[in-house]
Amino acid sequence: MRVIREKAWSLAGTTWSLYLRMVLPSSATWKKAGDMRPSKIFRNFVKLSYMTPYLHHSGGTVCEPVDVPVNKRHFDMVYSHMRYSDKPFMGSVTAPERAQDTVEMAKILFGEEFLERNTVITSLINANSPMVWDATMLGALKVYARSNQATVISPFCISGAMSPVTVAATAAQLYAEALSGMAFVQLVRPGAPVIFGTFSSSMSMQSGAPTFGTPEPQLVLYIVGALARRLGVPFRSGGGLCASKIPDAQAAYEAANTLQHAMLAGVNFMLHTAGWLEGGLSMGYEKFIMDLDQAGMICTFIKGVDLSENGQGLDAILEVGPGKHFLGCEHTQVNFEKAFFRSSIADNNSFEQWEAEGATDLAQRAQVIWKKMLLEYEAPPMDPAIDEGLLDYVKRRKESLSDSYV
Amino acid sequence: MRVIREKAWSLAGTTWSLYLRMVLPSSATWKKAGDMRPSKIFRNFVKLSYMTPYLHHSGGTVCEPVDVPVNKRHFDMVYSHMRYSDKPFMGSVTAPERAQDTVEMAKILFGEEFLERNTVITSLINANSPMVWDATMLGALKVYARSNQATVISPFCISGAMSPVTVAATAAQLYAEALSGMAFVQLVRPGAPVIFGTFSSSMSMQSGAPTFGTPEPQLVLYIVGALARRLGVPFRSGGGLCASKIPDAQAAYEAANTLQHAMLAGVNFMLHTAGWLEGGLSMGYEKFIMDLDQAGMICTFIKGVDLSENGQGLDAILEVGPGKHFLGCEHTQVNFEKAFFRSSIADNNSFEQWEAEGATDLAQRAQVIWKKMLLEYEAPPMDPAIDEGLLDYVKRRKESLSDSYV
Repeated sequence: MRVIREKAWSLAGTTWSLYLRMVLPSSATWKKAGDMRPSKIFRNFVKLSYMTPYLHHSGGTVCEPVDVPVNKRHFDMVYSHMRYSDKPFMGSVTAPERAQDTVEMAKILFGEEFLERNTVITSLINANSPMVWDATMLGALKVYARSNQATVISPFCISGAMSPVTVAATAAQLYAEALSGMAFVQLVRPGAPVIFGTFSSSMSMQSGAPTFGTPEPQLVLYIVGALARRLGVPFRSGGGLCASKIPDAQAAYEAANTLQHAMLAGVNFMLHTAGWLEGGLSMGYEKFIMDLDQAGMICTFIKGVDLSENGQGLDAILEVGPGKHFLGCEHTQVNFEKAFFRSSIADNNSFEQWEAEGATDLAQRAQVIWKKMLLEYEAPPMDPAIDEGLLDYVKRRKESLSDSYV
Repeated sequence: MRVIREKAWSLAGTTWSLYLRMVLPSSATWKKAGDMRPSKIFRNFVKLSYMTPYLHHSGGTVCEPVDVPVNKRHFDMVYSHMRYSDKPFMGSVTAPERAQDTVEMAKILFGEEFLERNTVITSLINANSPMVWDATMLGALKVYARSNQATVISPFCISGAMSPVTVAATAAQLYAEALSGMAFVQLVRPGAPVIFGTFSSSMSMQSGAPTFGTPEPQLVLYIVGALARRLGVPFRSGGGLCASKIPDAQAAYEAANTLQHAMLAGVNFMLHTAGWLEGGLSMGYEKFIMDLDQAGMICTFIKGVDLSENGQGLDAILEVGPGKHFLGCEHTQVNFEKAFFRSSIADNNSFEQWEAEGATDLAQRAQVIWKKMLLEYEAPPMDPAIDEGLLDYVKRRKESLSDSYV
């Protein structure tokens, strides 16, 4: 699986370019907003994640910067997370020494002593399902665990390929894999933080392609979420998963189906929340913005029901009475600004107004948003000495390695 | 509210035409498949509902046949449900005498004696929220209750307009309205069947437009579903609700968000499952097919987890072992045909294959499906004497009324 995934990541840059060419004709705005180098696209997604209130984490390999040598990409990725955002991030896991580079850079950013006492990096350790932890992943795991940094111990199961074709069997295998990985972390450093990770999808038995947003993986989520709570460890799953190549209705149904069920299964760490297309082989700006809207709705939903006196609103019902409307009553006036989640991209207007305003679809409206966000982006403040220290570390380490593209 | 809804229905024909013009250039296939008369579109949706295994009910006013006089439409609608489908259907509620016509036609179809002992019609009685049941709706309710036919007693709340802007207050009002309506049915005929109906949406506090797929109505659903179970009555809500004018990503996110939460809230009668666009002002063929796919997934999900020995799949895990794949193992071979829900319209193929096959979006693939289905439609068998009886009743009753378009 690691081999397949590595290959997928290598293809990703090409796929984006195709996708971006298809939906984004070059324009002055686009040129100002950025270009198509994957490492620049990576930075753009870090910037967009930093700007939204609906993501609380900068992610890890948000996309693969294939324009940079394989053995040097992690420097650019980790530096981007540190420099262009102030949200937590994931470290490199593609080789133990790259994990170590992540830890060293975190020491520069946070201070060595602070790092020893605090967990500032959460990194993704995928099982080579079925039932194998490979040396690369365990090597990275050891680096992070020894440094008291968190790992997401994630079986990666596409039912039918890496696990049996039934829900119960897949859940059992996921549990066994996650348990063994989390136990290994405790052998490396007792008490080192772990998250029970789960990536679950099915496959098309006709083509072998992974499928998303379908009912069987949803059922797996509820079982595994309950098992994680039984163990008392945080649960990772997610996110806006889909197989569609474009931000169309397929992408949206599949993403919504995964996001909503992951939320209700009790996910603590929703990975891949925004931007997924083509089974993770590409990232799309419009899909990213569309999923952010969904993430905002999830933030509202999980607050639950307000049962305060204001929430019960009895005064409003008494004031308005039968056959009237609540638009102007006092309770509405007091609460209307925060009453409902407000989408930034949904069009709820009349057909006539929507038509007069250009008859746009959701993806077109999302495109306007991300371009505007990138133009308005301002980097968070950083101590120049720390920035210099990071850049110096990256420069020295890059010079010590010859370029490798495998 | 009834006035607003009636107006909305009257607009519906126009809106479809616009929508259909936009996405469906005329072609030989389209001409063969049907035309744009709303009463024909109505029949088409009845036919499509009849053909899919994922809908168990033919619906009621699946769209408004605005080409037929208002006071005669119900004859065409009820006859269409009876003649072009064999699934259960909803009766007319727009006037007590139209409800009576529905009952009379059901007597012709099923026999008077059968109807007295069996419930064959389930009709939708909407509250004029807040806290009003109007004479039209109660008139229809009385006709159905007296005939021992079922009614869905449905508060129709757009929070902020017809109920307070908070979740708890909206749920409390919904409960009070539904309880009073269901109690009224029992006064008319003790034991007459009722369903606890719920239509819940929020509104944009900026424009006053109803919004769909947002978190607050989802929370309302869980409360009201629990209250229905507490009362021991079936629960209606749903469905594929959305505000989008086209079958784009907005339509899909919103529909999925409502469908999945309605399912998990324990809906027994999922109304408006397929086809909704523009807040219910229009029906779309592509959206209908897209939502059917989701309905199929819901049918799979609610079966739950197979915990039989085959479901547990231990033999498969033992046979395959670490580091191998499950594609060819015996358990997969035995189960692969029914292992996973198979979408008829999702594209899970590689980018390259998808591009070679025309780079279609979900709506384009859905269009192929509904046209094919209409061409392949065959009416269910019906005793010619019964059909003649129905047509004769409709002819006599239509002749007794002068056309009215208000």
